Amino acid sequence: MKKIGIIGLGLIGGSMAIDLRRKDYASVILGVENDPVNASAAEKIGLVDRVTTLEECVQESDVVIVSVPVGAALRIVPKVLDIMAVLYPDGGCDKVLMDVCSTKESLAEAVKYHPMRKCYVASHPMSGTEYSGPWAALPGLFDGRACIICDFSESSPKAVRTVEEIYDTLNMRVVYMNSSSHDVHTAYVSHFSHVISFALALTVLEKEKDEKHIFDLASGGFSSTVRLAKSSADMWTPILLQNRENVLHVMETYTGMLDAFRKAMEDADEDALRKLIQDANRIRRIIR
Amino acid sequence: MKKIGIIGLGLIGGSMAIDLRRKDYASVILGVENDPVNASAAEKIGLVDRVTTLEECVQESDVVIVSVPVGAALRIVPKVLDIMAVLYPDGGCDKVLMDVCSTKESLAEAVKYHPMRKCYVASHPMSGTEYSGPWAALPGLFDGRACIICDFSESSPKAVRTVEEIYDTLNMRVVYMNSSSHDVHTAYVSHFSHVISFALALTVLEKEKDEKHIFDLASGGFSSTVRLAKSSADMWTPILLQNRENVLHVMETYTGMLDAFRKAMEDADEDALRKLIQDANRIRRIIR
Repeated sequence: MKKIGIIGLGLIGGSMAIDLRRKDYASVILGVENDPVNASAAEKIGLVDRVTTLEECVQESDVVIVSVPVGAALRIVPKVLDIMAVLYPDGGCDKVLMDVCSTKESLAEAVKYHPMRKCYVASHPMSGTEYSGPWAALPGLFDGRACIICDFSESSPKAVRTVEEIYDTLNMRVVYMNSSSHDVHTAYVSHFSHVISFALALTVLEKEKDEKHIFDLASGGFSSTVRLAKSSADMWTPILLQNRENVLHVMETYTGMLDAFRKAMEDADEDALRKLIQDANRIRRIIR
Repeated sequence: MKKIGIIGLGLIGGSMAIDLRRKDYASVILGVENDPVNASAAEKIGLVDRVTTLEECVQESDVVIVSVPVGAALRIVPKVLDIMAVLYPDGGCDKVLMDVCSTKESLAEAVKYHPMRKCYVASHPMSGTEYSGPWAALPGLFDGRACIICDFSESSPKAVRTVEEIYDTLNMRVVYMNSSSHDVHTAYVSHFSHVISFALALTVLEKEKDEKHIFDLASGGFSSTVRLAKSSADMWTPILLQNRENVLHVMETYTGMLDAFRKAMEDADEDALRKLIQDANRIRRIIR
C-alpha cells in the first residue's frame, strides 16, 4: 500500500481518492486544496485523511496526483518537480508524479527539460460528469473506461509501472499515445462537443429574451445535446485555450458540414439533405 | 370506447396504439401501413387488430391518427379529409382526424380551405426516441411529456375535446399554440439540435478516414452530443425541409455564437472565453 497525495480535490481527484482507498491501494491520502470550502468538505466527506501544504504533501507521499484545471496544472506540475529536485539533490528520487489533465501538449512542453522529468507520468483518465467539486466525487467513476498515458518513454519505466498499477486498480483500459496525438483525438471526441453544446445553450438562451416560454417544449433530444453546456468554466476555459489549435481545426470541418446543411435547406434540396443525414447515421456503428 | 385508425405504424403510431388499448380507450385499432414488412410486424406484435386500406380505415374509425413522416402527411391529411367529405356529402361528419407531426405550418396551409377542416386537429406530442419502426414502439412513451395542439379555433370544439381526451389518456400535458409559433419553438428546442448532432457525426466520421482509431476515446460527453445523429433520414429530411426557414434562422444565431468561441480561441482571450462558458452555464436552470 502506498501513501497518496492528491492536489486538487474535485470530481476527478475526489473520485480517485474514493476508489484507491476502497480497493486498498492507498494507506494514507493527503490532499492539497486552495479553496477553503472544498478543503473542509473533502476532509468532512472523508475523501482525504488530512489537507496539508503542497510541500508537505510531496514530501510525505509516494505518489502525487495533480488533478486541478489545466491552467493551474501548468504551474503546479513543474513546481512539484522542483520540490522533488530539492528533496533529492543527488537524484535517486523514487516518488512518482502524475497528472490527470484533459490537455497534454502544453504540459509536455512545460516539463520537457526538467531534470526530474523521469519521475513524472502524463495521463488522462477519460471519464467525468458535468458536475464538479468534492461533492461530485463518485465511487466507480473510472470503471471500464479508457485512460491515456502520454509520452511514456520520457518517464522512468518504474514510474510508468506505478501509474499503470493505479489505473489497473481503478479498472481502466490503458492506451498509449504521444501528447500531440492525444490533443488531436480529444479535440474531436470530447473538447469540441463542449463547444457546440455551449453555443446551443447560448443560442436558445438568447431567444428566451423574446420568447419567455421557449424552454417549455424542450425535449429529451435537446437535453441530451445541451447537457455538456453545464460544464464548469474553471475547467473548460483553460482546456479550450490550451487545445485551441486542434479545436479550431475541428471547428473548421464542422462549419463546413453546417454549411452543407444550410445549402441543402436553402435550396430545398431533398436528395442532398437525405444524403447528409444518411451519412451521419453511420455513427450508429460507433454509438450504441 | 372508440374505434381508432392509425395511419403509419412506426414509433409514434405504434406507441399510441399500445397505450390507447392498454388504458381501455380503444375498442378496436385499425392500421394503415405502406411498408409490407412493417405492416406484418405491427399485426404480429399486436399493435393493431388488422391492417387495412386507407379508405376502409377512415370509414370504420371514430378517430383517425396520422403518424407518418411529415412529407407524406402533407398528402395524407388532405386525402383523409377528402374521404370524409365523400362519406358525409351533406356535412354532419362526427369523425375526428388528428396528426402527430413535428412541423405544423405547412400542414396548416395544406388544409386551410378544406371544407372538412373542422374535423381535423393539428397536434404534436413531444416525445420520441432515436429509433423507428413498429419494433421501436414503447408503452408509456408519452407519459408526463408535453403535447401541443395547434390552431384549435380552426377545429370544431367537439373534435378538440376528443383529441384532448386522447392526450389525457396518454397522460400528456397539453399546450396550445398557433402552428407558426410551434414551428419557431421546435426549431430552437428540437429540430436544430438534430442538425448540430448530424454535423458533429459527419465531422468525426470524416476524421476517421485518416485516424482509424479516433472513436476509441469517445467519451460519454461525445455520445450524449452525437446521440441524435442516429435519427432516421426518412423522418428528419422532410422536417428540416418544411421548417427550413426557422431552422436556418436558428443556425444564423448559432453560427454567431460559434464565431464568438472561434474569436476568443484565436485571440487566446481567456476572459472572453470564460464569459461565454459562464453565460452558457445558465442552462443549468433549465436542464437538470
